Amino acid sequence: MRRWSFSKGHGTENDFVLLLDRESMLEVGPAEVRFLCDRRAGIGGDGLLRAVLAKHIDDWDGDGSLWFMDYRNADGSVAEMCGNGARVFARFLADQGLASGPTVPIATRSGLRETTLLPDGRVRVAMGPVTVGDGPVEVTVGSDAPVAAIPVSVGNPHAVSFVDDLERLDLTSAPRWAPADAFPDGVNVELVRELGPRHLAMRVFERGVGETRSCGTGTVAAAAAARSRAAHLAGSEGFGGVVPPGDEHADGGPVTYRVDVPGGTVEVELADGEASLVGPAVLVAHGEVSVPGSGPGKE
Amino acid sequence: MRRWSFSKGHGTENDFVLLLDRESMLEVGPAEVRFLCDRRAGIGGDGLLRAVLAKHIDDWDGDGSLWFMDYRNADGSVAEMCGNGARVFARFLADQGLASGPTVPIATRSGLRETTLLPDGRVRVAMGPVTVGDGPVEVTVGSDAPVAAIPVSVGNPHAVSFVDDLERLDLTSAPRWAPADAFPDGVNVELVRELGPRHLAMRVFERGVGETRSCGTGTVAAAAAARSRAAHLAGSEGFGGVVPPGDEHADGGPVTYRVDVPGGTVEVELADGEASLVGPAVLVAHGEVSVPGSGPGKE
Repeated sequence: MRRWSFSKGHGTENDFVLLLDRESMLEVGPAEVRFLCDRRAGIGGDGLLRAVLAKHIDDWDGDGSLWFMDYRNADGSVAEMCGNGARVFARFLADQGLASGPTVPIATRSGLRETTLLPDGRVRVAMGPVTVGDGPVEVTVGSDAPVAAIPVSVGNPHAVSFVDDLERLDLTSAPRWAPADAFPDGVNVELVRELGPRHLAMRVFERGVGETRSCGTGTVAAAAAARSRAAHLAGSEGFGGVVPPGDEHADGGPVTYRVDVPGGTVEVELADGEASLVGPAVLVAHGEVSVPGSGPGKE
Repeated sequence: MRRWSFSKGHGTENDFVLLLDRESMLEVGPAEVRFLCDRRAGIGGDGLLRAVLAKHIDDWDGDGSLWFMDYRNADGSVAEMCGNGARVFARFLADQGLASGPTVPIATRSGLRETTLLPDGRVRVAMGPVTVGDGPVEVTVGSDAPVAAIPVSVGNPHAVSFVDDLERLDLTSAPRWAPADAFPDGVNVELVRELGPRHLAMRVFERGVGETRSCGTGTVAAAAAARSRAAHLAGSEGFGGVVPPGDEHADGGPVTYRVDVPGGTVEVELADGEASLVGPAVLVAHGEVSVPGSGPGKE
């Protein structure tokens, strides 16, 4: 049995177990990740975030003195980048005295990401380029009729559909799409309702997971799709170059969307094809956990 | 924001947040319970176990120097007694140096309960009287045909049905029963498969909760029903007083059943109409949690 220090935190209820492992001394394999993320037999979380100096990561060829966000899914598999996780990770580094901010660069499997600790307690994460795809696809949710969805890439694939009523949608089973080859690696489906100018409500079905309380890249996809839709409406449905009310930035300039998800609220900033995600990052608890097994650990 | 020390533990994956609150100084209302038991925004647990000296409990008229198990459900409501929780609670008291064992009496809303810390690391809990009711009721699970079930009272109501195949049962919706007035306060339904002599496998649907990983009183009910069934088979189906193999204690003497539940394995000891539950009690983590609000707390 090993005793590891841990923290637990969440961003819009996307929650994580956090470990500080500066010199990569902890043996954190899939079994340890599954245990720590087990909500009944362990601590519980959607994933694990291990803070390790980047010089210990073989595939990292950048500045080795940066903190690397070693992100794993709850099932033990390796994951790349997570907008909600990056916010919580930056908050954790600051809380542990490992970063002073306001800007905190983070090394990830998707490359260097800049995070910023904001004065109001929220954290901004640079999410990189966002690409809205051509032509709608059809998405079917539950027993409903198919609806049109906008394909969006935020590094990972998304399909965003605008709907009038979020409440009654049945997301207990995975959405289907057509054409079937539109998303060969699967897709995250965002169902979005426009509440007002640049104010969206969203539910999300994450591929391989199910409906979740929040999905950082999903909120970015929703905002990008909403902006694209506004520009399309302005151009093709009679606005004739006159920008519709509330979409004065539909020409490509910087614009901020508020996105309400079941787990809270975030803001998505879009500018020059790049996105930033601003949202809460809460550390709930700190402690020591007894980890089964006989790896080297801390003792 | 208050910072409270907490532990997290589980018994056969029935999990709890534990607080030490000797002099009842913490303000632990329904909001605090819901936060602490929230699996994403808080710590996460099926319930909260607060250790407080019994003299601070208005309704307790016994020895005030005992530790009282203030048990709350995750939804914030007050609960009475929980076999899995009592084991974890006894382990917590010993871990905190508040009880030396091996016998640890615990004050509960159901009265005084004796627990025993066993040398093998498990904990025994006296569960009180068990009563097997008259005549079978009918229970319907999912879309299956109704099956006969034995009513059992372990302080709370149970219906135990013996089945040949546990795997394929659909417990995603609540079981129904007939006659409808058999359980006016609802019932916990145990589906039991006999794996061998005094060895049961069980799935359980807890009233008001759903299928769970374990239910302490449910395992007691299953064992009592199995013994009653064995005695019945011996008496009415041709054994003619000859005790069937493996049920040599069907005459009422002490007998021990092993019960496998999805979250682990427990043993149920039956003797003279009283039951004891023996099973694991694991403390996983200790730490400090930041509790929203401005109650008196610890600071």
